[in-house]
Amino acid sequence: MRRIALTIAYDGTAYSGWQAQENAVTVEGTLRNAIRRLSGEEVQTVGASRTDAGVHALGNVAVFDTECPIPPERWARALNTFLPDDIRVTESWEASEEFHPRFSAHSKRYEYRITEDPIVNPLRCRFVCGVRGALDVDAMQRGAEQFTGTHDYSAFCSAGAQTPTRIRTITKCEVYRDGQEIVIGVEGNAFLYNMVRILAGTLIEMGRGAIPAESMAEIIESGDRTKAGPTAPPQGLQLVRISYDGE
Amino acid sequence: MRRIALTIAYDGTAYSGWQAQENAVTVEGTLRNAIRRLSGEEVQTVGASRTDAGVHALGNVAVFDTECPIPPERWARALNTFLPDDIRVTESWEASEEFHPRFSAHSKRYEYRITEDPIVNPLRCRFVCGVRGALDVDAMQRGAEQFTGTHDYSAFCSAGAQTPTRIRTITKCEVYRDGQEIVIGVEGNAFLYNMVRILAGTLIEMGRGAIPAESMAEIIESGDRTKAGPTAPPQGLQLVRISYDGE
Repeated sequence: MRRIALTIAYDGTAYSGWQAQENAVTVEGTLRNAIRRLSGEEVQTVGASRTDAGVHALGNVAVFDTECPIPPERWARALNTFLPDDIRVTESWEASEEFHPRFSAHSKRYEYRITEDPIVNPLRCRFVCGVRGALDVDAMQRGAEQFTGTHDYSAFCSAGAQTPTRIRTITKCEVYRDGQEIVIGVEGNAFLYNMVRILAGTLIEMGRGAIPAESMAEIIESGDRTKAGPTAPPQGLQLVRISYDGE
Repeated sequence: MRRIALTIAYDGTAYSGWQAQENAVTVEGTLRNAIRRLSGEEVQTVGASRTDAGVHALGNVAVFDTECPIPPERWARALNTFLPDDIRVTESWEASEEFHPRFSAHSKRYEYRITEDPIVNPLRCRFVCGVRGALDVDAMQRGAEQFTGTHDYSAFCSAGAQTPTRIRTITKCEVYRDGQEIVIGVEGNAFLYNMVRILAGTLIEMGRGAIPAESMAEIIESGDRTKAGPTAPPQGLQLVRISYDGE
């Protein structure tokens, strides 16, 4: 028995999120089907990030245990022959028994993409959130700077999410233009449910002037979800990469 | 009665090409439905470029005649409310009676996008053609330079295409890297059926060294379709823009 780890990229548009569900097409369910078709085994998979419906990934990570003799580095190419084009395994390797894709991660990077174009380019509409009117990127950047640190981020967590603690460490939060789009980049050791989408919704409100950029620290401190902006739509969000110690 | 012209962008993945057909979902058919829902009129549309299934456009142009009193510049926004997100009207204006979106055009630009990544990024797979192995972009550039001029381009036209003459004028043909992708850009007054995809297939063969880059002029002169490379797949192709005199 060995533990195989996979790096997985996907366009989340067609999927009801990462997590396997009865009666819904999910990324994890599609991956498990591919593993079964390749190896004949019905495996349990564990993913690093349980991305929501419509959210994309360039580098999610999943593991499973297998008795199949396929060499670890060959799984990527072999699985891709059984996967649709909108899901690709970009790398595979053998992980130790102690490796857990979520708990072993020391940093994840998410990006949220926004367009101010009143008419969203149909070649980009799956990957950006459209906003009405121009945004003040400087104000968004000031708000983003205050988002880093180790805090209780309850104000940036969807109600009802169950987690033992809402304290997280955010190491980087930046806002910049990339061609026609505005990108929010955020890195940390772990994230709360909907945290990046609520951050994006809050920074968009700051870009509009509807929430003062200087109030970010205050919003975090309040612990009050209603003080932050709305949850921005899923399609703007991408899980870019996950880093592990020793990589 | 007046003639309304539209600039239209679309992700062609979900459509059986531009041209309206019975029993198939096409860009033109979807546009006509939107016009009918907005104005109550059953109009005839004429498009500048009858793109194939899976081919994209940032700036196709179409016209129709209408008695509907909606001001010309308002059609874009109004039609978008009846169109899916993968088709957007980006501009609308009143055109003269003499204006024909294809015959009035003095220049069109197409781009063809290629990736050498052995695993095609699923966020780009709708918009690029994947090739195995690295391409020699310098060789492709040398082949592209020889493609310009006024010639009989029969070697770059799919068999059976009906057209009074296969003489066309290509004013620009370039190959360059754009991030992780290789782009073929080509401009001319008009194009033959599948011309850009056969050009792309030929330049890819030149990039692989399977066809000598220096033989482009010879291939054109031969007038022999079998001397050129294969027709490259549709998803790499985008109609970027159409220019008209006086614009």
